Amino acid sequence: MISKKMEGLVNNNSVIRRMFEEGKKMAEEFGADKVYDFSLGNPNVPAPKKVAETIEALLAKEEPTVLHGYMSNAGFPEVREKIADSLNKRFGTGFTADNIMMTVGAAGGLNCALKALLNPGDEVAAFAPYFVEYRNYVANYDGVLVEVAPDTETFQPDLEAFEAAVTPRTRAVIINNPNNPSGVIYPEETIKDIAEILERKQKEYGSEIFIISDEPYRELVYTGAEVPYITKYYANTIVGYSFSKTLSLPGERIGYLVIPSEAADYEQLFQAVTIANRVLGFVNAPSLMQKVVAECLDEKADIGFYAKNRDVLYDALKEYGYSCIRPEGAFYMFIKSPVPDEKEFTEEAKKEHILLVPGSSFACPGYVRLSYCVSYGTCVNSLPGFKRLAEKYGL
Amino acid sequence: MISKKMEGLVNNNSVIRRMFEEGKKMAEEFGADKVYDFSLGNPNVPAPKKVAETIEALLAKEEPTVLHGYMSNAGFPEVREKIADSLNKRFGTGFTADNIMMTVGAAGGLNCALKALLNPGDEVAAFAPYFVEYRNYVANYDGVLVEVAPDTETFQPDLEAFEAAVTPRTRAVIINNPNNPSGVIYPEETIKDIAEILERKQKEYGSEIFIISDEPYRELVYTGAEVPYITKYYANTIVGYSFSKTLSLPGERIGYLVIPSEAADYEQLFQAVTIANRVLGFVNAPSLMQKVVAECLDEKADIGFYAKNRDVLYDALKEYGYSCIRPEGAFYMFIKSPVPDEKEFTEEAKKEHILLVPGSSFACPGYVRLSYCVSYGTCVNSLPGFKRLAEKYGL
Repeated sequence: MISKKMEGLVNNNSVIRRMFEEGKKMAEEFGADKVYDFSLGNPNVPAPKKVAETIEALLAKEEPTVLHGYMSNAGFPEVREKIADSLNKRFGTGFTADNIMMTVGAAGGLNCALKALLNPGDEVAAFAPYFVEYRNYVANYDGVLVEVAPDTETFQPDLEAFEAAVTPRTRAVIINNPNNPSGVIYPEETIKDIAEILERKQKEYGSEIFIISDEPYRELVYTGAEVPYITKYYANTIVGYSFSKTLSLPGERIGYLVIPSEAADYEQLFQAVTIANRVLGFVNAPSLMQKVVAECLDEKADIGFYAKNRDVLYDALKEYGYSCIRPEGAFYMFIKSPVPDEKEFTEEAKKEHILLVPGSSFACPGYVRLSYCVSYGTCVNSLPGFKRLAEKYGL
Repeated sequence: MISKKMEGLVNNNSVIRRMFEEGKKMAEEFGADKVYDFSLGNPNVPAPKKVAETIEALLAKEEPTVLHGYMSNAGFPEVREKIADSLNKRFGTGFTADNIMMTVGAAGGLNCALKALLNPGDEVAAFAPYFVEYRNYVANYDGVLVEVAPDTETFQPDLEAFEAAVTPRTRAVIINNPNNPSGVIYPEETIKDIAEILERKQKEYGSEIFIISDEPYRELVYTGAEVPYITKYYANTIVGYSFSKTLSLPGERIGYLVIPSEAADYEQLFQAVTIANRVLGFVNAPSLMQKVVAECLDEKADIGFYAKNRDVLYDALKEYGYSCIRPEGAFYMFIKSPVPDEKEFTEEAKKEHILLVPGSSFACPGYVRLSYCVSYGTCVNSLPGFKRLAEKYGL
């Protein structure tokens, strides 16, 4: 009865979201403290106090017709200007309000970018492992996601495989840095190499190829490592940002796109993403939250909270014999499954009330993703279960 | 450079939105009190006090990780339940939380419904005059909008023309009641007739044809007229609602879809709209606002405010010789242009600092739309300009 495209999606519904629903049911059945739900990137750190304070201040001083009203589809101009200024201060860029479009989270922003760019059959490259929704976002506009196979030693981009994957139909490359699900950071050298390959391919094919940089985890970095700001290395870049993780506002759906003036046909492109925002039904990013984030740009995520979780989990899992990369950013750990079929492992883990997402949801079977944006207690209390699983599999 | 679909949209950008931008510029140039901007449905009535009070209460009592966190893609279960209960109380329906999906405004909801239903080439009928974005929403999923020509005497649906427009490819009919831009209400008899035609056509073609009922103006009714709740007359109905107009929250992007259990393949359909919500990048309706509207379901729009505007404008325009239907609902007036090319008239009106939207944006050339959700002062002060225009055109 439903559309053919949706039939495929319904039959193959998001494992992550199904886990989330399952986790809630298990919590009801066994008690929330007895379920170790590492399935979803739903931060357990409360939003900074400044968020509630700003909401209260806005309610007191702003006209409700403005605070809750329509504005330009691209967002409130003063909000966009504050974001541009903040980026310029932190990354030495030269943006103005005209380079910023407020979006319904990063997911909304990516959809607008892809709607603006893709003709049917256009290819979008992505480095495995990648967030599984990219495939759906690209398919929304009849594009084809082309997977660059993972380097499971380092989880850094395999640049040779990437170069081979770029064709005359390549319209965009999605980069997610820091990376979900691996937690690695792509360093400046890698970004320069990717930019160099794309410059060369653009010349060779006479095409414009965009980097779409999905950056919800930009501020979640443990090592002091720099996360390169890609517009400084490559003109045809669209940055998608979300405040979901930094300000712990995932349910509020607030983020932005950056379209640098150096991008090809910048003015037309900016108009296109703005119109996409409108016709896809977002219309504009939620108005109150636009004004809230503009006042919270200097707030920091409580990175210490996540670092503590990472350390206790990483150290214990390594001790138990699991194999995984120590995350440098984001709040995910990508663990090698003790058995080739990682779905078997996630099913076994469920018996320990541990919820993990199979790596096949990230185009990387044989691994599982653990989201450690949960309470410290959840991490610590899950350890005996992980230990029993390790023993069961003879690690 | 941008996609072909977007090229068409950029070249033919929304006249309404362009007017909105133009109105802001004119207000800066001439002063806001000297510009009579009737272009956009952006309510001038402030949100009810209960909205700010509820936000403050929620900030005080709810955990920020819940208040601003992810929930099921369909929305918070308790919010959906309250909405179902409110509908049941008011319309004698029998909905539960499982019939309600929270959406990013009505526009977001309509997109989810169309994504769930349409295969490429499927037809969606709409009664002219209709909100121009319907055409874009349908085109997002490669559907074809089939226009039912307007009856410019009554602006009620032409049922004979409608019946002729329904084909084996018809997948849905969009109904907007009370109507934007005409302000008329389709009475129960008309809804029954439409339902009867569709039942017959479904049988004839062996197809399922959905009514998608776009109802942001349901609560804005002047005459005491009943706006029929369509699920009671026709099983294959999807209702799209928005709190934008009733609670004056258009910028917050909060609404819901109703999928009645009687709809064909209800369970699969509900799953499909929920997944569409996710993959289109909405993910979920803004979390704080979900909880706000759940507490404000009994708040009433200040219909007196709009009625006063309607009366002063309607009476004066009739006196000056303009021809239009007295609106029964919503906050729009659809005025016959004094010259066949209504764009000439809107350009002349601009010289009087009066901003109106050409009817060709509603598939009804020869008319103009006036949004009177503005201050009473704007209405009154615009009258001399309307009078001069009437004299100029010899009305």
